[in-house]
Amino acid sequence: MNAKSNPHYQTLVNHFQSISHFEHLSALGDWDQATMMPMGGGEARGAAMAELAKHIHSLKTAPMLAQTISEADELPLTEQQKANLTEMRYQYLQANVVPSELVVAKTKAAYHCEHAWREQRSNNDWQGFKPNLENLMSLAKEEANIRAEAQNVSPYDALLDKFEPGMTTASLEQIFGNLKSWLPQLIQQVQDKQKSEASFTIPTASAESQARLGREIMNILDFDFNHGRLDISSHPFCGGVASDVRLTTRYDEGDFTSGLMGIVHETGHAKYEQGLPLAWRGQPAGLARSMALHESQSLFCEMQVGRGPAFLKLIEPYLSSLLGSQLTHDQLTNIYTRVTPGLIRVDADEVTYPCHILLRFEAEKALVSGELAVADLPEFWSSQMQSLLGINTDGDYKNGCMQDIHWAVGELGYFPSYTLGAMYAAQFRNAMECELGCMESLINSGKLSSVMGWLNDKIWSQGSLLSIDELMRQSTGETLNPEHFKKHLIGRYL
Amino acid sequence: MNAKSNPHYQTLVNHFQSISHFEHLSALGDWDQATMMPMGGGEARGAAMAELAKHIHSLKTAPMLAQTISEADELPLTEQQKANLTEMRYQYLQANVVPSELVVAKTKAAYHCEHAWREQRSNNDWQGFKPNLENLMSLAKEEANIRAEAQNVSPYDALLDKFEPGMTTASLEQIFGNLKSWLPQLIQQVQDKQKSEASFTIPTASAESQARLGREIMNILDFDFNHGRLDISSHPFCGGVASDVRLTTRYDEGDFTSGLMGIVHETGHAKYEQGLPLAWRGQPAGLARSMALHESQSLFCEMQVGRGPAFLKLIEPYLSSLLGSQLTHDQLTNIYTRVTPGLIRVDADEVTYPCHILLRFEAEKALVSGELAVADLPEFWSSQMQSLLGINTDGDYKNGCMQDIHWAVGELGYFPSYTLGAMYAAQFRNAMECELGCMESLINSGKLSSVMGWLNDKIWSQGSLLSIDELMRQSTGETLNPEHFKKHLIGRYL
Ligand SMILES: [Zn+2]
Ligand SMILES: [Zn+2]
Repeated sequence: MNAKSNPHYQTLVNHFQSISHFEHLSALGDWDQATMMPMGGGEARGAAMAELAKHIHSLKTAPMLAQTISEADELPLTEQQKANLTEMRYQYLQANVVPSELVVAKTKAAYHCEHAWREQRSNNDWQGFKPNLENLMSLAKEEANIRAEAQNVSPYDALLDKFEPGMTTASLEQIFGNLKSWLPQLIQQVQDKQKSEASFTIPTASAESQARLGREIMNILDFDFNHGRLDISSHPFCGGVASDVRLTTRYDEGDFTSGLMGIVHETGHAKYEQGLPLAWRGQPAGLARSMALHESQSLFCEMQVGRGPAFLKLIEPYLSSLLGSQLTHDQLTNIYTRVTPGLIRVDADEVTYPCHILLRFEAEKALVSGELAVADLPEFWSSQMQSLLGINTDGDYKNGCMQDIHWAVGELGYFPSYTLGAMYAAQFRNAMECELGCMESLINSGKLSSVMGWLNDKIWSQGSLLSIDELMRQSTGETLNPEHFKKHLIGRYL
Repeated sequence: MNAKSNPHYQTLVNHFQSISHFEHLSALGDWDQATMMPMGGGEARGAAMAELAKHIHSLKTAPMLAQTISEADELPLTEQQKANLTEMRYQYLQANVVPSELVVAKTKAAYHCEHAWREQRSNNDWQGFKPNLENLMSLAKEEANIRAEAQNVSPYDALLDKFEPGMTTASLEQIFGNLKSWLPQLIQQVQDKQKSEASFTIPTASAESQARLGREIMNILDFDFNHGRLDISSHPFCGGVASDVRLTTRYDEGDFTSGLMGIVHETGHAKYEQGLPLAWRGQPAGLARSMALHESQSLFCEMQVGRGPAFLKLIEPYLSSLLGSQLTHDQLTNIYTRVTPGLIRVDADEVTYPCHILLRFEAEKALVSGELAVADLPEFWSSQMQSLLGINTDGDYKNGCMQDIHWAVGELGYFPSYTLGAMYAAQFRNAMECELGCMESLINSGKLSSVMGWLNDKIWSQGSLLSIDELMRQSTGETLNPEHFKKHLIGRYL
């Protein structure tokens, strides 16, 4: 199949290649802003980034696209080209469905709300935050309604679809309903089991030595430093582009353990990016499949591999030589699998984390449907935290409903990706072990690379060439099956 | 004068503001490429930057511009708005005169030639470089001819005008002819005078300690770190945008003196950028006036201020505390004013530097007119080096005509800016001293800030609101007068 046999498709390929070039620059601007840019550069950068976003939006909504996509569909295409065309159509629809005045209004409100939130959060100022959030939520609901109408689904389904194409409220209610039926009890059991365990003193470590350690760990995970780098930012992320992945973390000199696992987590994201199919770079089919699948790769690295005894045994000598740590891998395993219900999602352990997501899923659903008013959010939060984790959060907005940036920037529908990712990760591990045998044994015998190789073959190198369900079927023999996650938690923690 | 009274002008302001946003991203991409980007990211970045350049070019050649500029000119404008319109017209003409096929062909040839040059230069491979340079030169000449016809000037004048608007071959022949009449003899006299001077041992210094020192020196020069940063690149430059100036240098652990003066030099460029008029940010009138004036500011910092005894006395304690240097400011002054004819332009001292420019000016003129063939360049080089600096360069292409990147990327007409800059700098100092008194005394009495303040008032804050001649007249009472440079060299070196 060549360009001549389907010139319309070729036109689209060129157009989306252009878009990806501008998105490359957008990723660079974001990374630089978080890692390098001096404060005073923010205003001009913000204006430049807004101009760039406008330009990218205009390319994604180019008037010729609708017809060219239809025409390309009527001429011969390979299966992979068809997959690419499907992704092009999806991107086009996503960009076109929301009127640009609403995009602009929401972007402005989000900018204002986030800016104020940074200060209001540290002041525990719910009364100040509330009107901003109300304003932003009403715009987010307007967006959800428009998307819902265009896709003929419910408003919250339309939001879920932005991050996890095909995911529905109904599926999530089933998946999360099941989770809710056994997780709180499991947490109680794990806590009972762990309550007699000793605690360990964690040695202090300079940011420089932690960064050196981080690079060693990234090397162990076979991160390609010819196509990426590690830097510092106040909120760790994995940015950049597939050919140049920009990973960031932060270092707590009093406790290296969280920064270290943060690097392992982000390296999981990075490996997915670096492993995306070379032949499809710059095309929609060459992108990561979904946000939940992205999270599945970071959580595979962090939760399945990183917190397991074999990996911790592997890195123990580096901790000793680079940080002067005397922690054994048994002690490290103990530290990294300690379960403690807490207020903050991003600090949560593997077992309690899903409770934070269950709460947010219920809240978002109710906010979008109108059953829950923004004003009633703190009360809703308190009662859920009490019932899910047994924690009283009354009056603590800062560490309660104001803790995440997501709502403060008007992003709804993203949270479920975290727990879906954890479930996908457990399912991948199960399928991998059916093929390759016990993963802990593989790592113990120096074969971490075959673990990475399996992920590369089954997931990374597939880009978006398969639907999520098809990717899951081809890699694990079944679509999403949350039982593997339950089995994993019980196996590791009970 | 408001937007309503001249809507066409307002349209142009918005359009050029857009262009500046994309140029902001272009500057960021360049800086990142030189300082941060891993090698493997180069290909995708190159493609993204080419796409961005194409987009910027399309904005600068937008079909509506010609008419809108004419229409704006017919309605009321303030003097400053008129100056801005003049710069807009200039940018439009510069971008439109060369057909885009030629721009593309030259960009490709330049990319190829530069890439090969990096290797060929280190191998002293003139025979390999020659055909690439011939090809690129013929495209550069084609560009020069097209510009010449459009501007009704000679081809080399058209190239000069790109960097120093209004500068002509005739003026340069007069200025440089005069220089040539006294400089070689001066060099001889200075060498005779310096031949009995002692030499000093320069202590080794780690890159980290040199970077710490560099930041201290930048603070002394009042560099605004809220609007800029210092990093490392193999070729020092001053990039970024006015609100976020990205300065780079390199460190030689065996000799800190060149890296240090490199930072002072680039800080001079940076101060100009940081001092550009805030009200005109993003508009053509808010940009630096010309390349020679830019160089005048870096050379003012480096040559007039940086290598003078008062400044060296000021920084002596920092060298001692941060590098453990025991060099006195007298010894530093001696080191920083040592005159030694050498092969390499960028390593040349203040006195011999113009000889390197004289040679390149003659060569470029002859290459563009066709009087000199690329094949005859090495011979031309040798004979000029012999007569100007008494150095034999036969067969040493690497340190001869292959040493600079400029021709390897097809850039002709830039070199004179360096020496024009040195001349402007000496003229500024003279005018400043007429107003404020002896600069060395000012620095000695802790008033470096009044020196900087003068430059800010007279030059930086003017952006491109005045023509070069008018800027010179308002700041120094006369247009370019090379006598001040001669006086400066004689005063400092004889
Ligand atoms: Zn993640
Ligand atoms: Zn310079």
